[in-house]
Amino acid sequence: MAEAFRIRNKEVLLFQRSYPMRRAVDPEISKDIIEELQKHNVNLHLGESFKDVEDEDKALRIISDKDEYLVDIIILAMGVRPNVDLAKRMGVKLGVTGAIKVNERMETSVKDVYAAGDNVEAIHLVSGKPVYLPFAPAANKMGRVAGDNIAGGSSRFKGVLETTFTKIFSLHVGRTGLSAWEAEAAGFDVAAVDINHVSRSHYFPGKEQMHIRLIADRESHRILGGAITGREGVAGRVNTLAAALWGGLTVEDLTQLDLGYAPPFAPVWDGLVIAANVMKRELK
Amino acid sequence: MAEAFRIRNKEVLLFQRSYPMRRAVDPEISKDIIEELQKHNVNLHLGESFKDVEDEDKALRIISDKDEYLVDIIILAMGVRPNVDLAKRMGVKLGVTGAIKVNERMETSVKDVYAAGDNVEAIHLVSGKPVYLPFAPAANKMGRVAGDNIAGGSSRFKGVLETTFTKIFSLHVGRTGLSAWEAEAAGFDVAAVDINHVSRSHYFPGKEQMHIRLIADRESHRILGGAITGREGVAGRVNTLAAALWGGLTVEDLTQLDLGYAPPFAPVWDGLVIAANVMKRELK
Repeated sequence: MAEAFRIRNKEVLLFQRSYPMRRAVDPEISKDIIEELQKHNVNLHLGESFKDVEDEDKALRIISDKDEYLVDIIILAMGVRPNVDLAKRMGVKLGVTGAIKVNERMETSVKDVYAAGDNVEAIHLVSGKPVYLPFAPAANKMGRVAGDNIAGGSSRFKGVLETTFTKIFSLHVGRTGLSAWEAEAAGFDVAAVDINHVSRSHYFPGKEQMHIRLIADRESHRILGGAITGREGVAGRVNTLAAALWGGLTVEDLTQLDLGYAPPFAPVWDGLVIAANVMKRELK
Repeated sequence: MAEAFRIRNKEVLLFQRSYPMRRAVDPEISKDIIEELQKHNVNLHLGESFKDVEDEDKALRIISDKDEYLVDIIILAMGVRPNVDLAKRMGVKLGVTGAIKVNERMETSVKDVYAAGDNVEAIHLVSGKPVYLPFAPAANKMGRVAGDNIAGGSSRFKGVLETTFTKIFSLHVGRTGLSAWEAEAAGFDVAAVDINHVSRSHYFPGKEQMHIRLIADRESHRILGGAITGREGVAGRVNTLAAALWGGLTVEDLTQLDLGYAPPFAPVWDGLVIAANVMKRELK
């Protein structure tokens, strides 16, 4: 929304108690997002809390814990909660996240009642814990699995990695698996490295810088997650990490992973492999 | 080279005994390459063999098994062979491919002699067989492993997937693992599916069509390889398949793989997941 209003040349004030995309990424990645927002003259008010709103003549007065601001429109993005009213009335059990609990066949606790989509919790395949992450790709896959099983099939929904992409002005942001703070909360002995690399061979026109943050477990050397920012080649590399997470690949695997090379698409040492090499040293 | 000469508006005749990129891809993928070459007015002479060349006044006469052609320049691309003269003189054993045989530490058959790079064979991680694939990313990784071990470390080079990208005019081509013909030659019971899908959400500006070919083993349902052509988003998806191959993912895994979604980068059902769903039906 900030981007859409700035493109129409409206003044935008963005308030956030912590930092942009805190749920999904570490501060090291959010820093790139902050820079992009500032570059496009979004007035950031980070670490600032909304207290109240007052109606003025032809305007709204925002009262924060630091100051007051007159604005035309207020847009609130306050997170998402599952709508479980119907489930409760049917006696369907909820999980620890407050969303509907299902098994791999998408069966609820009530016989012959299936649930799928944005009101359902899923297993995070890295932490092994239930999470509530209402994203479209998982919701669609759950629906397919539920439908298959209702019709007599035997499909299973394995879980999620929270692979997500977003575009903030011209910055591409992608992440998968656990951020460092999530991995710590999940009880891993976390190692994190940040590298900068190019999207194409350094001599190839159109190359762009990218920032890759890789998260791994110091004990097992298993890759736990990653996040990338840049202006091209971000989504594909994040998906590559997602496939690596699904397969339980270690940092050593990633140092060896046979990723493609051609000057228009990637340097001979892909950023993911570079990040894995840096992580390998970090784990020594 | 064909592209470079066409960009300079030179007439180009391209002779090939079989079809373009036969070593790397199946005819189904090569068809897209042929269309791109034709679109840019490269005169294709497929299934036509070079017999002889004669020197004419200010020109060269090509004699094929079908016709004769007068040209200014002939460029021959006849494949690559390892240069193993030094290895032979040192008594270093060669492998079945004719390239230098090494173990995972890059040690040759001669004590304290290591080999790495374009003269060395490697294990193909899908077929488990030695292959000679002199590509830069593997050569670089081998060098790093050899160097580490020479200096007292204990790194291992696992093998290759033959992940390669190329750009032919504006067509991106990528492949990883085994093509159907390679998989058959390696003894697998091969299933192949071809799908067409979009690189971004269908309503998002700049979306491009892509063709995804997926290869799997009918017995184990393991993914054996894949190839993609398109005009964006090809390289990242091929790398994603490469990571899936490294982890030994099945077709069922790929139907569930949590790939990212955002309209500028991918539709909610990524093409790889669609291809896996089509393959799942094919395997029934």
